Amino acid sequence: MSSTEPRRSIATVCLSGTLADKLTAAARAGFDGVEIFENDLIASSWSAKEISEHCAELGLSIDLYQPFRDFEAVPPDVLARNLRRAELKFDVMEQLGAGTMLVCSSVSPDAVDDDELAADQLHLLAERAAARGIRIAYEALAWGRFVNTYEHSWRIVRRAAHPALGLCLDSFHILSRGSDPAAIRTIPGEKLFFLQLADAPRLQMDVLQWSRHHRLFPGQGAFDLTAFTGNVLAAGYRGPLSLEVFNDVFRQADPAPAAVDAMRSLLALQETLGVTDVPPAPELAGHAFVELAVDDVSEPRLAEALSGLGFAETGRHRSKPVRLWQQGDARILLNRTASGQQGSASVGAVAVESADPVGSARRAQRLLAPPLPRDHRAGEADLSAIAAPDGTSVFFCRTGAETGDSWLGDFTVTEPAGPGTGVTKIDHLALAQPFDHFDEAALFYRAVLGLEPEPVTEFAAPFGLVRSRTVADPSGRVRIALQSALLRRGDWAPKVREPQCVALSTGDALASARRMRERGAPLLEIPGNYYDDLDARLAPEPALLAALREQSVLYDRDEHGELLHFFTVVLGGRVFFEVVQRIGAYAGDGAANSPVRMAAHRRQREAGA
Amino acid sequence: MSSTEPRRSIATVCLSGTLADKLTAAARAGFDGVEIFENDLIASSWSAKEISEHCAELGLSIDLYQPFRDFEAVPPDVLARNLRRAELKFDVMEQLGAGTMLVCSSVSPDAVDDDELAADQLHLLAERAAARGIRIAYEALAWGRFVNTYEHSWRIVRRAAHPALGLCLDSFHILSRGSDPAAIRTIPGEKLFFLQLADAPRLQMDVLQWSRHHRLFPGQGAFDLTAFTGNVLAAGYRGPLSLEVFNDVFRQADPAPAAVDAMRSLLALQETLGVTDVPPAPELAGHAFVELAVDDVSEPRLAEALSGLGFAETGRHRSKPVRLWQQGDARILLNRTASGQQGSASVGAVAVESADPVGSARRAQRLLAPPLPRDHRAGEADLSAIAAPDGTSVFFCRTGAETGDSWLGDFTVTEPAGPGTGVTKIDHLALAQPFDHFDEAALFYRAVLGLEPEPVTEFAAPFGLVRSRTVADPSGRVRIALQSALLRRGDWAPKVREPQCVALSTGDALASARRMRERGAPLLEIPGNYYDDLDARLAPEPALLAALREQSVLYDRDEHGELLHFFTVVLGGRVFFEVVQRIGAYAGDGAANSPVRMAAHRRQREAGA
Repeated sequence: MSSTEPRRSIATVCLSGTLADKLTAAARAGFDGVEIFENDLIASSWSAKEISEHCAELGLSIDLYQPFRDFEAVPPDVLARNLRRAELKFDVMEQLGAGTMLVCSSVSPDAVDDDELAADQLHLLAERAAARGIRIAYEALAWGRFVNTYEHSWRIVRRAAHPALGLCLDSFHILSRGSDPAAIRTIPGEKLFFLQLADAPRLQMDVLQWSRHHRLFPGQGAFDLTAFTGNVLAAGYRGPLSLEVFNDVFRQADPAPAAVDAMRSLLALQETLGVTDVPPAPELAGHAFVELAVDDVSEPRLAEALSGLGFAETGRHRSKPVRLWQQGDARILLNRTASGQQGSASVGAVAVESADPVGSARRAQRLLAPPLPRDHRAGEADLSAIAAPDGTSVFFCRTGAETGDSWLGDFTVTEPAGPGTGVTKIDHLALAQPFDHFDEAALFYRAVLGLEPEPVTEFAAPFGLVRSRTVADPSGRVRIALQSALLRRGDWAPKVREPQCVALSTGDALASARRMRERGAPLLEIPGNYYDDLDARLAPEPALLAALREQSVLYDRDEHGELLHFFTVVLGGRVFFEVVQRIGAYAGDGAANSPVRMAAHRRQREAGA
Repeated sequence: MSSTEPRRSIATVCLSGTLADKLTAAARAGFDGVEIFENDLIASSWSAKEISEHCAELGLSIDLYQPFRDFEAVPPDVLARNLRRAELKFDVMEQLGAGTMLVCSSVSPDAVDDDELAADQLHLLAERAAARGIRIAYEALAWGRFVNTYEHSWRIVRRAAHPALGLCLDSFHILSRGSDPAAIRTIPGEKLFFLQLADAPRLQMDVLQWSRHHRLFPGQGAFDLTAFTGNVLAAGYRGPLSLEVFNDVFRQADPAPAAVDAMRSLLALQETLGVTDVPPAPELAGHAFVELAVDDVSEPRLAEALSGLGFAETGRHRSKPVRLWQQGDARILLNRTASGQQGSASVGAVAVESADPVGSARRAQRLLAPPLPRDHRAGEADLSAIAAPDGTSVFFCRTGAETGDSWLGDFTVTEPAGPGTGVTKIDHLALAQPFDHFDEAALFYRAVLGLEPEPVTEFAAPFGLVRSRTVADPSGRVRIALQSALLRRGDWAPKVREPQCVALSTGDALASARRMRERGAPLLEIPGNYYDDLDARLAPEPALLAALREQSVLYDRDEHGELLHFFTVVLGGRVFFEVVQRIGAYAGDGAANSPVRMAAHRRQREAGA
């Protein structure tokens, strides 16, 4: 860590569980400190003193006690009650060893719109706090009754003029209102007592609800946290970068990976701020291979399907039960990981071509991606591998390297590739993510692999809403669509694990479909109603429409180009293939056709295919 | 059914699954017709003709084909394309046998703000439709680009003056904007071609998102659908009452119970409109008993706990393995339903005192509550029972009736009730509901039992957000708190079924707690931090605070009164008891204390108690 690197903290409210769960998760993810959220303390059986000791053992400082509400600009009798309340909280803070208390701008009906009164009373509070060695960080809530901008809170703090009174800046409260953070630079750094960071998607809704339910870790939403934080650091702020994220999903998710996700968001933010030692992301040049985990029953089924799609088994691994199937630059490994008889198949690993596999792995490790130990023999390639949030292995490799360094050297050639069906390479993967890890996954691929997230889209599938977000390298050569069923996607629906798609590129979808059908590939049938609607909606040329209908090829068009694509049935319970032809600069993945594809897959399952 | 009772329909978009799933569910719930949502048809492998035949077999008419978008007020070239699109959809509608098409007001950038042009083009569309025997129902979307009120859509329809052109009124589009529905009465009934009904909670958010994700069935939200529908019927509308509800939860829930929920919402709406034959709800006078399903292992544990709480085993059922435990008017039945060795316990049945049990059961059946067959011998009481959405049995009984009619007569008296600990009756129950059935459950208890739902509340529990809604009779003698974990509540958290609470009344919580402790009741310990915060927050008298702290009794206060309450540990994996003292007219259930209680229960589980 460079000496100028800021400390990193997290509010306990970001994580799920009891206070003990939260502190353990924060410490294991490498945080330096925590904000103690009052409700977490109240529900804990540890006394404040015990919490303090526990944090010390975990190496966590207690950077903030929060929140203290509805203090300022009130009549004398309310002030007396509020001061009593504050003194009782100072007692707790002394036991905790917490030096700073967050005071939110008032939303109370008791308060009046009087900056001078607010400043006087905050001065009084700061005086009381100072006597206990405590500082007051005053924060403008975006929905504060009278004080709801940082400029306003700063005017009051300046007027109060007490050394123990400063500001807390919260990126959500400032950016959600569209305030310009540039003026933060004009505030003296020593009056910036605390910085809370939260991102959020742009939502048109009540700001209080938006704040309480939909905040995200930096880099997961739509706010420009680099510019915001840059202004705060430029003003001379020297406290921790602290996350305060209220999010319905994180509130109920395992706190251990959530804390890692949180820390990764800060490391990635520091990188864009230039205060980091994270090594840069090497360029990625495409998908090297996809490995499917198969068993005794599913391997022959997958092999038959791959053969139908025009792949040939071109190699066998020298020491492992792994077969290489190839067509053009599309490579699929079938890894018979277990000798089970379940008939299951799933995507076990994704391999990307990296200009510097070792550099990619080093960056991944610095960004807290769990490294995967690889079992390889002397003379075999040492592939660097990490685990993605959903457990998929991600390999970094250079297929075109000298034989001794290429993973291809580990395979004996069994057969040359045949004429094929027009497939040239892997176009993209679509991987269903566990609901709890959707935002984490997008941040993982962005930060660790350096892929760019495209906008989040949602569509209504037959069994509920599906959210989708594609991450891709700038040239579009590596492309992964992350998908997640909102809510639970039908306990009543057939019990299948969310499917995974391996999408292959072709230059001529109709010709590929024809040749694949001739070879017996298990292609998915699309109903006639789809083509009637396509005619009404996009009116393709009659000959094209007829060919699409005949071959069960789906179609989409945007302002940049066209997409022709078709699918196999689901194989091994979870995996299916897609074949994609992009015409012009069509940028999407045909999401509009997904509900039709999903209903067709449901029929296939019902038919027991 | 009375001859003036309207027909009832449902849009396929309300339900989850494929078109086949949806139609089956709608027919089984007793709907007369459906609106076919275009996307459902497009994804179906049935041709329009086959769908028509299938609906006819199920006894469903196809009342509407929807939606047709972005038609009117466009330049000539766009109009030509739109007319081609319409003719292709008319082809589908002819095959379907659907007589009415829904046309939504335009949101297209191609459209212009010109009522005369809109009217002319809609006239043209109606002319084309009429030639095919089809009618056009024009609807103002709340977010329509130029036409977004029903008054405006009516001006255009009146101006177009074509017999095949009329209005579709949608309660959401009208009530979400706060429009006054009274003027609907001025529209001639024969120009009201279709009525779509949806309720919704009051949300401060973008109206399009509100509409697409958060609609509810009538009576589940905040809109006054009785007044709205009354205006439409008063205008002379004679078409079906049709539900069009876009809801994220319903989209992924089992369509069979969802369709029943939908039908129940219409039956309840008809009752408030006075167009119904549903028998009125007899008065309820309190909780008669709660039955816990126990097994060989859990029964002794529950018996010991009940004894500690001051209950005595006062009776045994003459023919079933059921024991009656009693204190004051609080009665708990332990029903050893199975001889399992799991140690589990759960609320199996809730019994309410009804002024007319047979009348209550008759009403319940008319409102589609599944009746439960009861196994009773000659001379035993024939208790009327139905199943609530979560599977709990609900009994209607008259405990104070002549012996031959009272369920108490089925029990032989084994022991007189002892002096007890001050418990007088059952105060309320808190029943965790499956997430998918939360809104359904509230409507069920409101419609079937005639209970009044209180506002929905939400609180942040240690493992995620919890939503809560209490239903109670006007006198508060029957009171059931429905609770549900939003999202999935932590797969990572301890795998326990959501707990159920039986809350008992006392006139003196501190005295009851003391006596129960003396008797060895397994009471839940509350941490000291809670009382420190209570002092800061509500400042109870020091003597009271000390007593609360000593007895682990929690406290709350509102503008009407006070609440003192305490809890047992969780017994049999799922059930716990609460003891409640209400002072003054305190109306809530101490929800603010729930997170503290939940964290304490979590500690108990971890300690293996």
